[in-house]
Amino acid sequence: MSLDAVLARIDTDLDQSTARLMELLRIQSISTDPAFDAEVARAAEWLAADLRRIGFDASVRPTTGHPMVVAHGADDGPHVLFYGHYDVQPVDPLNLWHRDPFDPAIEEQNGVKVIRARGASDDNGQLMTFVEACRAWKAVTGKLPARVTIFFEGEEESGSPSLVPFLEANAEELRAEVALICDTGLFSDGTPGIVTQLRGMLQEEITITGPSIDLHSGMFGGVAMNPIRVLSGILANLHDAQGTVQVPGFYDGIPELSEELRAQWEGLGFNVEGFLGPVGLSHPAGEADRTPLEMIWSRPTAEVNGIWGGYTGAGFKTVLPSQAHAKISFRLVAGQDPLRLRENFRDWVQAQLPPDCSADFIAHGASPASTMDISHPAFDVARTALSEEWPNEAAFIGSGGSIPVAGYFKEILGMDSILAGFGRDDDAIHSPNEKYDLSSFHHGIRSWARILHGLSG
Amino acid sequence: MSLDAVLARIDTDLDQSTARLMELLRIQSISTDPAFDAEVARAAEWLAADLRRIGFDASVRPTTGHPMVVAHGADDGPHVLFYGHYDVQPVDPLNLWHRDPFDPAIEEQNGVKVIRARGASDDNGQLMTFVEACRAWKAVTGKLPARVTIFFEGEEESGSPSLVPFLEANAEELRAEVALICDTGLFSDGTPGIVTQLRGMLQEEITITGPSIDLHSGMFGGVAMNPIRVLSGILANLHDAQGTVQVPGFYDGIPELSEELRAQWEGLGFNVEGFLGPVGLSHPAGEADRTPLEMIWSRPTAEVNGIWGGYTGAGFKTVLPSQAHAKISFRLVAGQDPLRLRENFRDWVQAQLPPDCSADFIAHGASPASTMDISHPAFDVARTALSEEWPNEAAFIGSGGSIPVAGYFKEILGMDSILAGFGRDDDAIHSPNEKYDLSSFHHGIRSWARILHGLSG
Repeated sequence: MSLDAVLARIDTDLDQSTARLMELLRIQSISTDPAFDAEVARAAEWLAADLRRIGFDASVRPTTGHPMVVAHGADDGPHVLFYGHYDVQPVDPLNLWHRDPFDPAIEEQNGVKVIRARGASDDNGQLMTFVEACRAWKAVTGKLPARVTIFFEGEEESGSPSLVPFLEANAEELRAEVALICDTGLFSDGTPGIVTQLRGMLQEEITITGPSIDLHSGMFGGVAMNPIRVLSGILANLHDAQGTVQVPGFYDGIPELSEELRAQWEGLGFNVEGFLGPVGLSHPAGEADRTPLEMIWSRPTAEVNGIWGGYTGAGFKTVLPSQAHAKISFRLVAGQDPLRLRENFRDWVQAQLPPDCSADFIAHGASPASTMDISHPAFDVARTALSEEWPNEAAFIGSGGSIPVAGYFKEILGMDSILAGFGRDDDAIHSPNEKYDLSSFHHGIRSWARILHGLSG
Repeated sequence: MSLDAVLARIDTDLDQSTARLMELLRIQSISTDPAFDAEVARAAEWLAADLRRIGFDASVRPTTGHPMVVAHGADDGPHVLFYGHYDVQPVDPLNLWHRDPFDPAIEEQNGVKVIRARGASDDNGQLMTFVEACRAWKAVTGKLPARVTIFFEGEEESGSPSLVPFLEANAEELRAEVALICDTGLFSDGTPGIVTQLRGMLQEEITITGPSIDLHSGMFGGVAMNPIRVLSGILANLHDAQGTVQVPGFYDGIPELSEELRAQWEGLGFNVEGFLGPVGLSHPAGEADRTPLEMIWSRPTAEVNGIWGGYTGAGFKTVLPSQAHAKISFRLVAGQDPLRLRENFRDWVQAQLPPDCSADFIAHGASPASTMDISHPAFDVARTALSEEWPNEAAFIGSGGSIPVAGYFKEILGMDSILAGFGRDDDAIHSPNEKYDLSSFHHGIRSWARILHGLSG
């Protein structure tokens, strides 16, 4: 059977696959710093050349920012679009790295082999799992089991400014039955997950103004309303004692979790102590009647991400400030309309203002939650394939964060995304000493080989 | 009668008095910036030389910081110590000044003549009112009506680091029956005030720690306790809806205002609209059952002077921070023990912490309120003299702020202070375009001439 031969080929070719990944990891493709523009371009060229070697019709496509790489396979079968990003995060603070971030090496960490380099996990190691799976299929059978289009972005770590225009301008070329995205992690060691629901986001910045100028608290303290007092009161009202968000209408229209997903999630044996312990916590905050996994994956939240006002330097200054500020974000789930929530939030703040105080708002991001339609057969194919490769059964899981590209694929290209990845919580992405487990790379390649096989029917 | 002759001499000498003040104002005696150390020293020398010309035995006395100026008159009568400070605030933002801050000039502002310069009001213009009063007495009568010691500080605007050691080392030399301090303002246009009660201060900095590291709010939001939420809740509890401070024992031991002072204060016709209007407010906050003047002069307050935590830069970052911080100050009145209140406050904060959160405190300043013993006859002498000079009767008033030197005089030298000054609310001290009304300077000199006369019995 050809799948077995492909998997065997992946095993014997692992050293060469790793060597190719390391070649890519030597390129300093930091997208946010113009000093590295040429390196970003070099990474795109390297990928296009590598894909051509496998037989793809690959091209580097300019944008007003960093280029995209688009590659088409010539094979029959269901059409899938694979997405990854080849740009990486900056490396500072450089002194916390124990080796050059762009001089990759296999090292041992906690008894397992890891590939150490910036981008090893996020996202070059992950995107190469798919490329290597394609290479193995072509080497063994001369073709791919599906019609594959590959799409690599070079601006994911710098806000993806060219992504939407590029998708809009090339919608016909990029639209497939389903997208495959490799930029997430395993649910836990040995248990792969496919993320099928991503939370949305509403970001608001609020400024409370009391007196028109900063005042001396000896002269005015007590008599003049202090905007920090007002802001604190409003923020304190954001949750009740049970952790329920108090903005009117906040929970309207949110569906309860399906029994099927609830059972799957309960079966994951999520370890709250293991989740909170490493960050110094032991008691879940938030909605008292929800499990932590439910809170992160399927319930909306409100968090204050920043607060400032008055004197914040060393020592003391008895100022009664004119203004106080906060940045507040809401993670949203299906059923919540970000723009209606923005209005409700602002009205709720205004209603709490004492005389003489005003509130001004800055609208930052707003995006709805997205939930994949898992009725497309590719979802079950992927789940079965992952379950066969890994020790434990794969689960459809949620994600507390947002992966904007999945939302754009749905909105602009009308396709759902299968978000499967092999990163681990301790990969230190965006941090010094980033790594990718060699076993993640190896079984990641094998996972995609199995998924491609499954897609062929 | 000699007082009349002295007052007449002051009137005819006003131009020369103003010219001498301007000479002093040309010296850039900014004490907080070492670049101006030589200028600070030059101001001390200038003052000592001027006092010698009047007949004082004056000396510039080195400290580990900026020098003090001490000058003794050789006359008989009750011994008084006059205090002022010759150092000035920095001048930035310089671009907001409409002339060089150290090129003094008489200008017209709102129809009255003002002396424009850094230090014109705070405190060189004020301290020279006393020097000029002495000069006039000496010129007319050849002596002073009291035994006068003059004590000028050069570090008041930079925290007075040498003041306490200097007072302790020179207590015998500086101790007098009563101190005269000219570093305050008129109660209102035409109404002089003698400040007889000064509030104390307790300053606390609090840090709330939740998770041990900053977290991603997508991964942990809702489940991990956010320290900004905890801090906001605690700060929101600091006052109840009536503005009453909720720290246990906060109001214990505070005496009610005497009927005499209450009547005097009510007679001042304090204009709340006129006080709050210029800073954009119209509704007094604070204790609902107290008048604004009572709140500022004789009631304790709690104010948040600074708050910060999480991401406070441009744009947005969905961080769930490890820590949140606030600086909180309490203005204290007679009967309150700062150190006991510090303990009560910390206990009160600790009692509100949810699981997994801790609070750390930094103790900043703590000083009790001080109330002058106005039974010393000099207080009535000063009040009568001021009432004769100004259109309206002088009042014993309170001050919302703290004037630490008055506390040190009491603590170290065992003497009360008569705090009388002629500044106005719109003098812009510490700000660009500082000024001192020429009439404040003129009638200030005449006021001290009258007080010196009164002291002689």
